[in-house]
Amino acid sequence: MKKQNYMEIALKLAKKAAINGDVPIGAIIVDENDNIIGRGFNKKEKDKDPTQHAEIIAIKKACKKINNWRLLNCTIYTTLEPCLMCVGALLQTRIKHIVFALKDSKFGCVESLYNLTLDKRFNHRSEYTYSLNLDSKEMLQSFFWRNS
Amino acid sequence: MKKQNYMEIALKLAKKAAINGDVPIGAIIVDENDNIIGRGFNKKEKDKDPTQHAEIIAIKKACKKINNWRLLNCTIYTTLEPCLMCVGALLQTRIKHIVFALKDSKFGCVESLYNLTLDKRFNHRSEYTYSLNLDSKEMLQSFFWRNS
Repeated sequence: MKKQNYMEIALKLAKKAAINGDVPIGAIIVDENDNIIGRGFNKKEKDKDPTQHAEIIAIKKACKKINNWRLLNCTIYTTLEPCLMCVGALLQTRIKHIVFALKDSKFGCVESLYNLTLDKRFNHRSEYTYSLNLDSKEMLQSFFWRNS
Repeated sequence: MKKQNYMEIALKLAKKAAINGDVPIGAIIVDENDNIIGRGFNKKEKDKDPTQHAEIIAIKKACKKINNWRLLNCTIYTTLEPCLMCVGALLQTRIKHIVFALKDSKFGCVESLYNLTLDKRFNHRSEYTYSLNLDSKEMLQSFFWRNS
């Protein structure tokens, strides 16, 4: 499956978050054989749990699926640049690659506020790709417009 | 209950982690009325889940207990300086105060590698107190000695 299609799957998941009144963010984790092993969408408000970000849910599902906390050769596709917590969780998994569809100037810690995935003091570094997807931008703008 | 006693409870939790072969780290969350509303110990290896740090488990339990993702006037007592992921999760909760018993020169992101809880660009800042507790140091040293 093409990378573009992976982000489209993540965007479909993001829509589910908005149905629950959560900020529309979705994420999937893909292994080295192009299998999707984890999916998640933001459930922070629905579950009243601040750790229920799309990325964390996808990580937990992927680790359960492969029965391993290491996601060594995997890639995460997420519709928004990961926050501090999610970057920390991704580095914990030793994930290979992070792809995100929109920068987050307020909370993003891959490129916007910090370049934490490249910090050589940590015991792992992850590659990342920022590939602007206007559907993610439009979805978030619509959500905040409706809820402002 | 005195703050010292809170850390002793966290240390007792840390011991439970070691029984499962996990690095002995424990954490509790205390509300403004001195009630313990969340407890956790590291279960990363036991659950094969990299997000199962003591602090994350305590956060999830506290939020469930009060049915709110905000832990506004709460304090977390943790036996080791929180890592990147856990600092991010704690800032998500808007927790007031972080108390830790031992610095972590490899992964600590409250004071050792970064001062992330004080970054004014985030939408919340947390106070922190580092109060060395030699029991935590001894417990971790013994664990790594036995498992090296």
